[in-house]
Amino acid sequence: MAVTARGRVLSGMRPSGQLHLGNYVGALAKWVELQETHECLFMVADWHALTTEYAATTPIEGYIEDMVLDWLAVGVDPSRSVIFRQSWVKQHAELQLLLSMITPVTWLERCPTYKEQLSELRDRELNTHGFLGYPVLQAADILIYKATQVPVGEDQLPHLELTREIARRFNYLYGALFPEPQAILSSLPKLPGLDGRKMSKSYGNTILLSDPLPVVREKANRMFTDPQKIKATDLGHPEGCVVFAHHRVFTSTVAVVEQECRQGLRGCVACKGELADQLAPRWEVFQTKRAEISRRAGWIHEILREGSRRASALAQTTLEEVRAALHLSSSPPPTPSQA
Amino acid sequence: MAVTARGRVLSGMRPSGQLHLGNYVGALAKWVELQETHECLFMVADWHALTTEYAATTPIEGYIEDMVLDWLAVGVDPSRSVIFRQSWVKQHAELQLLLSMITPVTWLERCPTYKEQLSELRDRELNTHGFLGYPVLQAADILIYKATQVPVGEDQLPHLELTREIARRFNYLYGALFPEPQAILSSLPKLPGLDGRKMSKSYGNTILLSDPLPVVREKANRMFTDPQKIKATDLGHPEGCVVFAHHRVFTSTVAVVEQECRQGLRGCVACKGELADQLAPRWEVFQTKRAEISRRAGWIHEILREGSRRASALAQTTLEEVRAALHLSSSPPPTPSQA
Repeated sequence: MAVTARGRVLSGMRPSGQLHLGNYVGALAKWVELQETHECLFMVADWHALTTEYAATTPIEGYIEDMVLDWLAVGVDPSRSVIFRQSWVKQHAELQLLLSMITPVTWLERCPTYKEQLSELRDRELNTHGFLGYPVLQAADILIYKATQVPVGEDQLPHLELTREIARRFNYLYGALFPEPQAILSSLPKLPGLDGRKMSKSYGNTILLSDPLPVVREKANRMFTDPQKIKATDLGHPEGCVVFAHHRVFTSTVAVVEQECRQGLRGCVACKGELADQLAPRWEVFQTKRAEISRRAGWIHEILREGSRRASALAQTTLEEVRAALHLSSSPPPTPSQA
Repeated sequence: MAVTARGRVLSGMRPSGQLHLGNYVGALAKWVELQETHECLFMVADWHALTTEYAATTPIEGYIEDMVLDWLAVGVDPSRSVIFRQSWVKQHAELQLLLSMITPVTWLERCPTYKEQLSELRDRELNTHGFLGYPVLQAADILIYKATQVPVGEDQLPHLELTREIARRFNYLYGALFPEPQAILSSLPKLPGLDGRKMSKSYGNTILLSDPLPVVREKANRMFTDPQKIKATDLGHPEGCVVFAHHRVFTSTVAVVEQECRQGLRGCVACKGELADQLAPRWEVFQTKRAEISRRAGWIHEILREGSRRASALAQTTLEEVRAALHLSSSPPPTPSQA
C-alpha cells in the first residue's frame, strides 16, 4: 500500500465497548467516507486504554470485540482499509521509545488534555509516566505509517500539533523522514444525548449502534424537546431541541422540519417518529451487516490479525528507515512468537 | 535456559567505546566470575545510550563493536552467557511501555541519578520523556528475564530499588509474576585514574583494555604517587597512592607492598614496574583473545545476533505471561523483518 496522491489516513479509538450514535457522527461516518478517497488505517488503541484503565484491564478484550463489530456494522470495510490492533504491531512501542528520547517533558505537561484529565479523573492515580507520555505514543501511531491526514475533533488539535512538533524535531535531528500530518476536522455538528447533555455511556443517554430499531424508536420518543412547546400548535424553538439536533444530521429536509416546528405546524411526537423513520433505512443496513458478521465466528479476530500483519509490514519499513537515520544498524528478523 | 537454583543474572553497559581498567574492575571481572555460577545475560544497552546521546548517535554503532570486543577479550564467553543487543530484543520496548503505565512520575523524579545528571550534563537538553523514563526501561530490561540478581555499583542501588518497587506494583495489580531482583555489590574497591581522579575517558586518565602492554607499562610509570615520597627510602603513604590502589586489586602480595612502602624499603619506580609485571600475564591473555577475535571478521555481529535471538525467545515467554496477566490476548506471530 503506497501513499497515494490523496494521502494516507490514520485514526483510532480506545476500546470502550459498544459505540453510540455520537461516536458514529463524530468519527465513524467520516471513516466510512474517507475509505472512498484515501488509504485508511483504523486502529484499536488498546495500549492507549491502559493509560487510564491500567488498574481494571479485564473488560478490554470484550470491548475490542464489541467496538470492531460496530465499526464493521456501519461500513468500515476490511477489504479497503487496514483494521488493526495497536498492541499487535510492536513497532509502535519501539518508535514511541525512540521519540520519547527527543520529546521534552515540558511539551507533554503543556498539553491541555493532560491537565484536564488529571483533574477530571480524580478516582484513579493518573500521574504515571505512561499517562504523561500518551501524546508520544500517539505521535508514534501516526508517524510510523507516515500518515498525511488524521481525522480529529477540535479538542484533539493540540495533540496533533504535538505530533507535528515531534516530527519536526526528528527531521531536524536526523534528516527529513516524516511528513507533518494534517488535521481533517469533522464538518458534522456534535450530537447531544437523549437528555441534552453530551452523549456518553456514563450518562446513560445514548443511542447505541447495536440497539434494535424498536429501541431506537423508543429512545427517540424519550428525547428532550423544547419545554415551551406543549401542544403541537405551540411555536417551537428547535435550537435547544435534542430531536432537532438529530434531524440536522440525519434528515435532508431539515429546513422544512425547522420551519414547521417554529410555526407550530408539527408536534413533537410526530417529529420524533419522523426522526426514527429517517434513521430506519440506515439502521437496517447496520443491523443486516451486524447479523452477517455475528454469524461468522472468529471473523473479527481474523480481521484484526490480518490487518495487524499488514500494518506491521508498513510499520517495519518506517522503523528500518528510522534506525538508519539514527545510524543504528537494523535488527535481525524477530523470533517467531513462543505462544 | 531455565532459571537455576543459583539464579539468573542480567547486567548491561551503555556502548561508550573502548573500555578501561576501571570498567573491568567495576563490572567485567564480576561478569566473568558470575558466568561460573549463574545463568548470565549481558546486554549492550543501546537504547539507554539514546537517553543522553540522542543528538549525536553516529558513533554508537562503532562503540558497540569496540565494547563487545573488550567484553570478549577479558573472558565474557558467548558459549556460556547470552550476549545481546537491547534494541534487537523488541520485547524490552513493549514491557517498558506497559510498566510505564503503572509507574508514577514522582517515583522517577525522586531518583537521585536523575537530578544529578540533569545538573551535571548541562550541555544538552536532558529533560525529555525518555530520560525521565530511564529507570522504567531498566526495570523492563531486568524483569523481562525475571532476573534474580543484578550486579550493580552502590550508586545504582536506588535504580534497582525502583525496579523492585515496579515489580511489586505489577504483582499487586495483576498477580505475582516477577521476582524482586537482588543486588550483587562489587567487593573490589574502585580504581582511580592515573592522576588520582575517577578513571574516566573524559579525563584522559585511563588504562584501556585495548592498550598494548608497553603502553600499560608507560601509563603505570605516569601514575601519581605519594608526593611526600621523593626518594626510595622516604617513608610512603600508600592510602593516597594510585599505584598502590592498583596493587590492592591486582597484587596478591599487597601486604608486602604496603609494608615496604611505609618503611621506605621500595621506591616508586620499582613499585610501578612491579604493578605492570602483575598486570602482564592477565594482559597477555586479553591480547591473545583480542587478536583471535579480530581475525574472525563479523564474529561480534554474529554473537550479538545469536544472543539477541536467544534473549528474544526468553523475553517473548515473559511477555506472553505479562499480557495474560493483563487479560490482553496474545499477539499473532510477528511479520518477518522487511530489511
